[in-house]
Amino acid sequence: MISMADISTILSRYDENDIKIATVCSHSALQIFHGARMEGFATIGISTARNRPYYESFPIAKPDIFIEIDDYKDILNKDIQEKLMKENAIIIPHGSFVEYIGADNILEYLLVPMFGNRLTLLWEGDRRRQRRWFDEAGIPTPKVYDSPFEVDRRVIVKLHGAKGGSRYFTASNRYDLESKLQKLGYREGYVIEEYIAGVRYYPHFFLSPLGRPNIPGIGYGSLELLGIDRRLEVIDEVYRGWPDVIEDYLDFTVTGNQPVVLREKLLIDLLEIAVRLVSTSRKLFHPGLVGPFCIETIYNPKRGFIVFEVSARIVAGTNLYTSGSPYSVFYYNEPMSTGRRIAREIKKAIKEDKLETIIY
Amino acid sequence: MISMADISTILSRYDENDIKIATVCSHSALQIFHGARMEGFATIGISTARNRPYYESFPIAKPDIFIEIDDYKDILNKDIQEKLMKENAIIIPHGSFVEYIGADNILEYLLVPMFGNRLTLLWEGDRRRQRRWFDEAGIPTPKVYDSPFEVDRRVIVKLHGAKGGSRYFTASNRYDLESKLQKLGYREGYVIEEYIAGVRYYPHFFLSPLGRPNIPGIGYGSLELLGIDRRLEVIDEVYRGWPDVIEDYLDFTVTGNQPVVLREKLLIDLLEIAVRLVSTSRKLFHPGLVGPFCIETIYNPKRGFIVFEVSARIVAGTNLYTSGSPYSVFYYNEPMSTGRRIAREIKKAIKEDKLETIIY
Amino acid sequence: MISMADISTILSRYDENDIKIATVCSHSALQIFHGARMEGFATIGISTARNRPYYESFPIAKPDIFIEIDDYKDILNKDIQEKLMKENAIIIPHGSFVEYIGADNILEYLLVPMFGNRLTLLWEGDRRRQRRWFDEAGIPTPKVYDSPFEVDRRVIVKLHGAKGGSRYFTASNRYDLESKLQKLGYREGYVIEEYIAGVRYYPHFFLSPLGRPNIPGIGYGSLELLGIDRRLEVIDEVYRGWPDVIEDYLDFTVTGNQPVVLREKLLIDLLEIAVRLVSTSRKLFHPGLVGPFCIETIYNPKRGFIVFEVSARIVAGTNLYTSGSPYSVFYYNEPMSTGRRIAREIKKAIKEDKLETIIY
Repeated sequence: MISMADISTILSRYDENDIKIATVCSHSALQIFHGARMEGFATIGISTARNRPYYESFPIAKPDIFIEIDDYKDILNKDIQEKLMKENAIIIPHGSFVEYIGADNILEYLLVPMFGNRLTLLWEGDRRRQRRWFDEAGIPTPKVYDSPFEVDRRVIVKLHGAKGGSRYFTASNRYDLESKLQKLGYREGYVIEEYIAGVRYYPHFFLSPLGRPNIPGIGYGSLELLGIDRRLEVIDEVYRGWPDVIEDYLDFTVTGNQPVVLREKLLIDLLEIAVRLVSTSRKLFHPGLVGPFCIETIYNPKRGFIVFEVSARIVAGTNLYTSGSPYSVFYYNEPMSTGRRIAREIKKAIKEDKLETIIY
Repeated sequence: MISMADISTILSRYDENDIKIATVCSHSALQIFHGARMEGFATIGISTARNRPYYESFPIAKPDIFIEIDDYKDILNKDIQEKLMKENAIIIPHGSFVEYIGADNILEYLLVPMFGNRLTLLWEGDRRRQRRWFDEAGIPTPKVYDSPFEVDRRVIVKLHGAKGGSRYFTASNRYDLESKLQKLGYREGYVIEEYIAGVRYYPHFFLSPLGRPNIPGIGYGSLELLGIDRRLEVIDEVYRGWPDVIEDYLDFTVTGNQPVVLREKLLIDLLEIAVRLVSTSRKLFHPGLVGPFCIETIYNPKRGFIVFEVSARIVAGTNLYTSGSPYSVFYYNEPMSTGRRIAREIKKAIKEDKLETIIY
Repeated sequence: MISMADISTILSRYDENDIKIATVCSHSALQIFHGARMEGFATIGISTARNRPYYESFPIAKPDIFIEIDDYKDILNKDIQEKLMKENAIIIPHGSFVEYIGADNILEYLLVPMFGNRLTLLWEGDRRRQRRWFDEAGIPTPKVYDSPFEVDRRVIVKLHGAKGGSRYFTASNRYDLESKLQKLGYREGYVIEEYIAGVRYYPHFFLSPLGRPNIPGIGYGSLELLGIDRRLEVIDEVYRGWPDVIEDYLDFTVTGNQPVVLREKLLIDLLEIAVRLVSTSRKLFHPGLVGPFCIETIYNPKRGFIVFEVSARIVAGTNLYTSGSPYSVFYYNEPMSTGRRIAREIKKAIKEDKLETIIY
């Protein structure tokens, strides 16, 4: 595994006056490039030949430099990595970046410095570890069943690595579940979770290790709420479906996002949960959460917020707020997207000579 | 009951160069504080000890001064009221403010000047009075049943004071209704309304008594449409629920809000309804509606807009538009939230020496 | 039919220093007037007497000049047209404009120069021609049935000219369809389309013939994505309806719009589709698409984007983005609505003496 010390050595060779922001052309890359430009950084887009001309068509969000690759895993190739390091690139990992390259590959082979704490990859990609994190933080989560035999209510089955929710399904009881698992041929690699009724809220937070503590319990750094979205999955149009076409709608693939705001009273509950996740993360994988993260919740008036996942990177829901959100204005007098916020943190770290605090 | 004259006397002792904007830390307080700051006012947050640190965490929206209380009703205590008056505080009442303290208590005991016309509290809190208001304004409303015996179609039962819709329920006919009422043990304190099919739209208006009349029939003052939202209630995810979990979704608790725009042709209908509500309000409770109000509607193509409630204060849906809305740009060249609009009206009133026109 | 040469002659008599932007007071007129004003144009509102005072109530979006008419078709009257031409008016056609006056009437009788290519009216109003356009562009569309006898799955029946979707309906099979058609007395004037399950996305594009080509295959001009919406139809609240009221919800009338963003990876697919539509349009009705257009799509993970309609004008969904969208910031450093974008194109054309490139 590539160590913090390895990255530190690489970073020490970087020209801090010529740092460039790099990411894969997908997911939230337009926002990341746009935000980097707002903060004065040059940008590098790692792109397939097919996607490049489309990314080039956005005058303010297109990357300054393109690195074309055939397969996203090629990023790990020595020549690509050296090219990135020669350009003083800091990679901003997003959901597709992690999905395309693989968390294990990143940890084992990616020498290019990345924004954030790379150890979070070990925790967010493994549902059991994530559960331990939530338990230690004292955060309500859905009941998880170790085996179909224990199932006593409707459950949702989530496949490991089924990015975008594309192969999730629900079952009404033990027998329904067993029959569906058998039909699909699944023996392992899934988690069986209690199905929770309620409204989904996906708040986007940013933990700035360089900020002054702004909430008790945060320890060090400041916590910002930069927006909230609700994912738009295929199932979210199921109500338009008649019984004969309903099967086509029972698909949890995320296709986009919608903006929402939350009752202000519930905002406090969310901030409290975020603080607990941050402080627990520091115990479990020092220095814990750094930069953007999203808590995936369902709010149910009887049970409060139930947390079912944390994404410890920029999430696609932030694409709603490329010029700020209803919440970002409470922190910034200028349009502040999560992409721009990342760039600003890097800028501040360069100025204060603290890059190693936020880069790993 | 505290009279307009009482408030006038108190206001006359205020230092108009040091007016502060005060409200309870909940509901739309962040927006109110943020807007007040944009207009140059200092702010006072009335908060529990638990909430205070969270409100302090927003650098641009945190109040300048905190007044900590154990129970929101403590606002009525002599020492708290005196503190507020010493600070030249004008309270901005929001939904939680009215709910926590109680309309009767405000009318009877709150000496601190409030933005708006406090008599609206008598009208918006009482469904029968509100109905009279709508009838006199000639505005279509849902049919109301005086008794379960009259019920001839699906109805929705709304409990008085069931804030946030948490204990609303529907019934398909008289027998279903009677059985549900009996099961819940409700004998009174509710209203039985015809269930209306259609799309919900909640437009946020602002009536400025200091503005120049901008629509015929408005009499005096100007009317602005500052945004439209749709509430996100638990039932709004019911389509994701399978029959075995559907009961958990049949809950009208408001959890947040989503932005919407309306067909422009229907906008005219809404403005017309708003004008009629304003002019009728002046006859019923002089000087009638002052400042922000929200008309809660359902649009049905066959029946047009059906109005089921008016909130004569800032509503939580305005939290979507902390830096303006798709409609506010038609009135203002700068980001204009409802919170900021309130502050601006107060600023203008101070300048024109007309505070008593907008404060009661 | 009024020829391009006719319009050219009229345009040549215009005072290019005093061009005014005109449209009918409905649909997206506030946005169009507001955008025109941002770009320094005077504006003309063609309005009924009833609507005029409401449009006058928006200080920044009200037109400078009103032309009152009793019936929208009166626009074709000689005196109204002469008045418009005397004012150097360029009409911005929107959905209601085309609906109220009629595509045939516009083509035959409207001498006033219009923004865009008037020939698109022939293509977007005729479902068979539109289908040919899609087929030549190689774009996936729903299966269309020539006769009820062929129906082998759930279908949606769309009536020609049923603007706003008000009389659309679905049928589960051939017999259901035949019985519904008979009951409604429809013999012709409708199209029978395969019902597609998925999430609806309505991206708003702008094709600038004056811009530099920014995507391969575009030929000339630049393509911009100015926003995406999802229409809010009555059926979109059907999940709140119990079986006894569900009939009232089975109504596809568009009542408003909601903002959405799309997964960035799918954005590329959309841009590709848009490029193909643009280049094909040039072959079919030279100079093809000019200015704003909207591709009405359904995204289904198994099939990708299915295109069911193109609106070759400003659509009402753009009303969400009167001060820009999550996507417009990737093209412009200032708030850019579609209305403003139109005005800017006209301004540029005047400056470059190329009005006839974008006006017909």
